[in-house]
Amino acid sequence: MYKKRGLLIVLSGPSGVGKGTVRKALFEAPNTNYEYSISMTTRSPREGEVDGVDYFFKTKEEFESLIEQGKLLEHAQYVGNYYGTPVDYVNEMIEAGRDVFLEIEVVGAAQVREKMPDGLFIFLAPPSLSELESRLIGRGTEAEEVIASRVEKAREELEMMHLYDYVVENDDVQKACDRIHAIVTAEHCRRERVEARYLEMLKGEEK
Amino acid sequence: MYKKRGLLIVLSGPSGVGKGTVRKALFEAPNTNYEYSISMTTRSPREGEVDGVDYFFKTKEEFESLIEQGKLLEHAQYVGNYYGTPVDYVNEMIEAGRDVFLEIEVVGAAQVREKMPDGLFIFLAPPSLSELESRLIGRGTEAEEVIASRVEKAREELEMMHLYDYVVENDDVQKACDRIHAIVTAEHCRRERVEARYLEMLKGEEK
Repeated sequence: MYKKRGLLIVLSGPSGVGKGTVRKALFEAPNTNYEYSISMTTRSPREGEVDGVDYFFKTKEEFESLIEQGKLLEHAQYVGNYYGTPVDYVNEMIEAGRDVFLEIEVVGAAQVREKMPDGLFIFLAPPSLSELESRLIGRGTEAEEVIASRVEKAREELEMMHLYDYVVENDDVQKACDRIHAIVTAEHCRRERVEARYLEMLKGEEK
Repeated sequence: MYKKRGLLIVLSGPSGVGKGTVRKALFEAPNTNYEYSISMTTRSPREGEVDGVDYFFKTKEEFESLIEQGKLLEHAQYVGNYYGTPVDYVNEMIEAGRDVFLEIEVVGAAQVREKMPDGLFIFLAPPSLSELESRLIGRGTEAEEVIASRVEKAREELEMMHLYDYVVENDDVQKACDRIHAIVTAEHCRRERVEARYLEMLKGEEK
């Protein structure tokens, strides 16, 4: 019996490219129907960030205990902090036929790709490298050496594009959202995902 | 130097599924920007069909001469008539970065898949087999034995779905069009198609 599974949608890309902004705009759109999987982190909340909304903020000890219990789909250290994705929520939603949306760092996305290769991996890319550098500097919330390390990291992260299914340019937040919506719609029409339903139909209606 | 190539978009599916209706609706939409490759056929025009708009209507002798000259991307005989796609127009448009749209029969689509494997193959599917049979009968423009042969053909054609990248259900013409638009948008974001541009950017901006 054919049972519709949800999609795992992974949005990642270099630091500073605007993943959080695009993700928020996506979820504010009226046509959005994704389950958002909130990441865990040990980094300190930035101004305006809310625990359980932007991230689950955990201590290092709490985080390491969850790793040991195998409760994370992926986890990584990034600029001295842990980031990770709780695994149970993702699996339950997909089995229930719901699309789950992750917004994670590039290193974490590579781990998810290994564990869930039929996920939908979207790389958010800057219009140009210089544009990305200005954004990293423009955020103005970090010390100079943190910014320098981020710029270098961002260059390395751009080179991990080959692990992704799609590349969405973030030239404009609304356009980026529209492209992501189109990608999700298209993936639901991919032959491998729906063929079983039609084969059943052909069998069921045979005379 | 990175040069953007257009996409070849092939819409096919079983006889009676509504390929022509969906194609017309697609091209009437304000956001459509495809080049339509008009097919050639030796079958007689149906009521309202215009030469050079719906098809290029050719005699059998003219058609066979074009086959000999290698001027067809695909051609097939279907219910006693030839159908085919002129090759030059398709290649010129793709090289010029334009998306070319073909609406063709399933047998022809299989030939195009062999010659242009990186095309975008969309299978238009009926909501159910009985729905498809009603549509074939409902058209009412053909003799009874022609309908019976079409129903059998349609069942066989449904089984060729495995050759396609996407399956779009034609439950509603507008919804089918929206899905096709989404698929084309998504394909333009596929990593394999755009990666070269970013690699060039990384190289160009290296210090």
